[in-house]
Amino acid sequence: MIISTSNAETVMFKKILIANRGEIALRIIRTCKEMGISTVAVYSTADAESLHVKFADEAVCIGPAPSNLSYLKIPNIIAAAEITNADAIHPGYGFLAENSKFSKICEEHDIKFIGASPDMIDKMGDKASARATMQAAGVPCIPGSDGLLKDFAECKKVAKDMGYPVMLKATAGGGGKGMRAVWKPEDLEDAWDSARQEAGAAFGNDGMYMEKLIEEPRHIEIQVVGDSTGKACHLSERDCSVQRRHQKLTEETPSPFMTTALRKKMGEAAVKAAEYIKYEGAGTVEFLVDKHRNFYFMEMNTRIQVEHPITEQVIDFDLIREQILVAAGVPISGKNYTPKLHSIECRINAEDPYNGFRPSPGRIEILHAPGGHGVRLDTHVYAGYSIPPNYDSMVAKLITTAQTREEAINKMKRALDEFVIEGVKTTIPFHRQLMDHPDYIAGNYTTKFMEDFKMKEE
Amino acid sequence: MIISTSNAETVMFKKILIANRGEIALRIIRTCKEMGISTVAVYSTADAESLHVKFADEAVCIGPAPSNLSYLKIPNIIAAAEITNADAIHPGYGFLAENSKFSKICEEHDIKFIGASPDMIDKMGDKASARATMQAAGVPCIPGSDGLLKDFAECKKVAKDMGYPVMLKATAGGGGKGMRAVWKPEDLEDAWDSARQEAGAAFGNDGMYMEKLIEEPRHIEIQVVGDSTGKACHLSERDCSVQRRHQKLTEETPSPFMTTALRKKMGEAAVKAAEYIKYEGAGTVEFLVDKHRNFYFMEMNTRIQVEHPITEQVIDFDLIREQILVAAGVPISGKNYTPKLHSIECRINAEDPYNGFRPSPGRIEILHAPGGHGVRLDTHVYAGYSIPPNYDSMVAKLITTAQTREEAINKMKRALDEFVIEGVKTTIPFHRQLMDHPDYIAGNYTTKFMEDFKMKEE
Repeated sequence: MIISTSNAETVMFKKILIANRGEIALRIIRTCKEMGISTVAVYSTADAESLHVKFADEAVCIGPAPSNLSYLKIPNIIAAAEITNADAIHPGYGFLAENSKFSKICEEHDIKFIGASPDMIDKMGDKASARATMQAAGVPCIPGSDGLLKDFAECKKVAKDMGYPVMLKATAGGGGKGMRAVWKPEDLEDAWDSARQEAGAAFGNDGMYMEKLIEEPRHIEIQVVGDSTGKACHLSERDCSVQRRHQKLTEETPSPFMTTALRKKMGEAAVKAAEYIKYEGAGTVEFLVDKHRNFYFMEMNTRIQVEHPITEQVIDFDLIREQILVAAGVPISGKNYTPKLHSIECRINAEDPYNGFRPSPGRIEILHAPGGHGVRLDTHVYAGYSIPPNYDSMVAKLITTAQTREEAINKMKRALDEFVIEGVKTTIPFHRQLMDHPDYIAGNYTTKFMEDFKMKEE
Repeated sequence: MIISTSNAETVMFKKILIANRGEIALRIIRTCKEMGISTVAVYSTADAESLHVKFADEAVCIGPAPSNLSYLKIPNIIAAAEITNADAIHPGYGFLAENSKFSKICEEHDIKFIGASPDMIDKMGDKASARATMQAAGVPCIPGSDGLLKDFAECKKVAKDMGYPVMLKATAGGGGKGMRAVWKPEDLEDAWDSARQEAGAAFGNDGMYMEKLIEEPRHIEIQVVGDSTGKACHLSERDCSVQRRHQKLTEETPSPFMTTALRKKMGEAAVKAAEYIKYEGAGTVEFLVDKHRNFYFMEMNTRIQVEHPITEQVIDFDLIREQILVAAGVPISGKNYTPKLHSIECRINAEDPYNGFRPSPGRIEILHAPGGHGVRLDTHVYAGYSIPPNYDSMVAKLITTAQTREEAINKMKRALDEFVIEGVKTTIPFHRQLMDHPDYIAGNYTTKFMEDFKMKEE
């Protein structure tokens, strides 16, 4: 058990409101049901037909489709929790999961927020302050500017001192917005101007910082769990290097690039990071790993992540359950876990991979789920369901697990072949080609992999 | 690995014909695909729309719906294998899986039969000879007659010597046919007459034997794997005590009745049984366990079983893959395996549990599969599929796996709630009530459990 067994005195939540939608809302409802905890779904008018609404014990409509009028609207969510008498809120990922104001308001309303405290979110949510915190904790960070760059003069100086190539990043950034790689001094000023402009428009904050650009970088993250006593453990890594415009497409554990020595070092660094900030709950410390297996702190996600199932598959624990137990005050045992199996997740999005991954919302006419040995499917959609155009395009997470990486890949190919979704375009053909790609099969990929990837006609 | 890793010289099959239908045919095709082995499905005209036909690389129609004209028709199956150039045949379970003539004909045609040799099938297929073999091997057997009962006089004498209650059994029996429990001497003659008559009509063989009736019996079976060197190992038990008319309804591993000491003893007995007959492949040694934890050999199934997935879930191996590897000559390591998790299987049949479990064939209008953490579904049906009335009524195997029995039960309840099959009646409501039954929850059930079970109106 990740958690210790001395939980006799724990008072378990009676009712949890899930402040999210789609597959993660359903994911959380499933575990609550299994734990005998009542559930409240909240939903926008666009999501009335989603499975998370159908499978919850109660459901409250919190507004129209645009997120700022529903899933981001804190007063409506708090009102729903109060009306239904929920004693805890699980925020899932995205939306309000890393919003310190929301975490604080929950606290003030005596509703347990199943996530990080406002203080931890603040420490880790702002990239510049996260970096400063991790440097203080002794966790290796990417060489870079000391916090925000005051002006272009400082930007120029830091880049010169550090040596090119460098990376300009927006402090409030996410999803690749406000980021620029700069390979030579003469390109710096243009990059500075355009990144600031983009960040200002997207986040209302044009603060920028700079980092050393990492060669042949891999995105490898460590799952951690911390408890209320300040103790933390890690559950090994996930390799999320296959990304398109900083959006993860597929993840796997163990990483094909991992060694036992590197896992030990990265795991220790992640636990150090979590314990330094007295992190409580499930979190992920994301690192960039260069071709020499140097690793650098990127950011910490103070929430459950989309790709958490692959970790569950290789260590045999239900991470949502562990999150809920830890939030209820159950201490963890402190043991770390290493993968016993190999697991891969493919994010199936309603997008057209032959057409620049353009979103393809609409009605799912036919859905046939793959199954059998080593196949897990997490989805909130079904035949007859209409995918609303308002939200992200992920419709399913297909996860395969086997003794070896080769077997997990072959199982994924088999499962992708069985998966039928008709009515909308999906990324199933992309994943099929990825699983056949010689560099993917060889485990030889970095975060740049997708830059050169071209779909073949099938 | 169950198999050893020294398989460098193994010549793997290029193409396997699956001499079966439904979920087990699909199950085998899936593993073949993952292993890069081509597949040939055979099918009756009634099964043209089954997934096992759609997912195989090739498919050959072998005759009309009645099994004796297709799935039991050896010349048609051998012809299909020869036409398609298959170098092996996997028989699944049922049909020809334990037919020594078929195994022999495959051998004669130089087609590897992925199952037991004709000799092993003969030794274990006939219950009286299986018993004699196991007694010679030193495996505990149920006290009983020494082979077939010559006449009623011997029947009477054996019953008197052994002491009532006793059980009369047909030597060619199966599915409960030709079986009678007799609690007092005055009922013996009627039982003898009616059981012989029933066996004669059902199997063309009215040979009878007698056993001691076991008190509060549990059906607990041990999965074994043997290789061509004569070595065997066991993969622990499955508790299949919840049966209706000798048909298993749900199975679990570990057994709630199991102790470490009993598992060791039963495992050793099963390995002894397998090694005594130099058993090659995956097999199951079925035992009856009485209330004092005495165990007695019942029979050995020389094939993969319906309920094999729960073993796969708790030891992390693909048993079909292991079967194929062993058939290709890969030796096993000899290590035994004990469950690390708890797994339960519910057999979902197209039957009406409110109406004596009457078969309910027909068209499936809507199918929504449960999913998420710890849920596995093995099924050959889909929305729009018509269940033919010609075969057994199982449409899906729903399997849940978790850290503890309680969690696996709660997960099963959650998964059953999510499972939607419309258009035919299914046993989903039965399994829902079973998972809520205090005796089932307490693990307090025997093979008699269903005799007293009544469906509640929902």
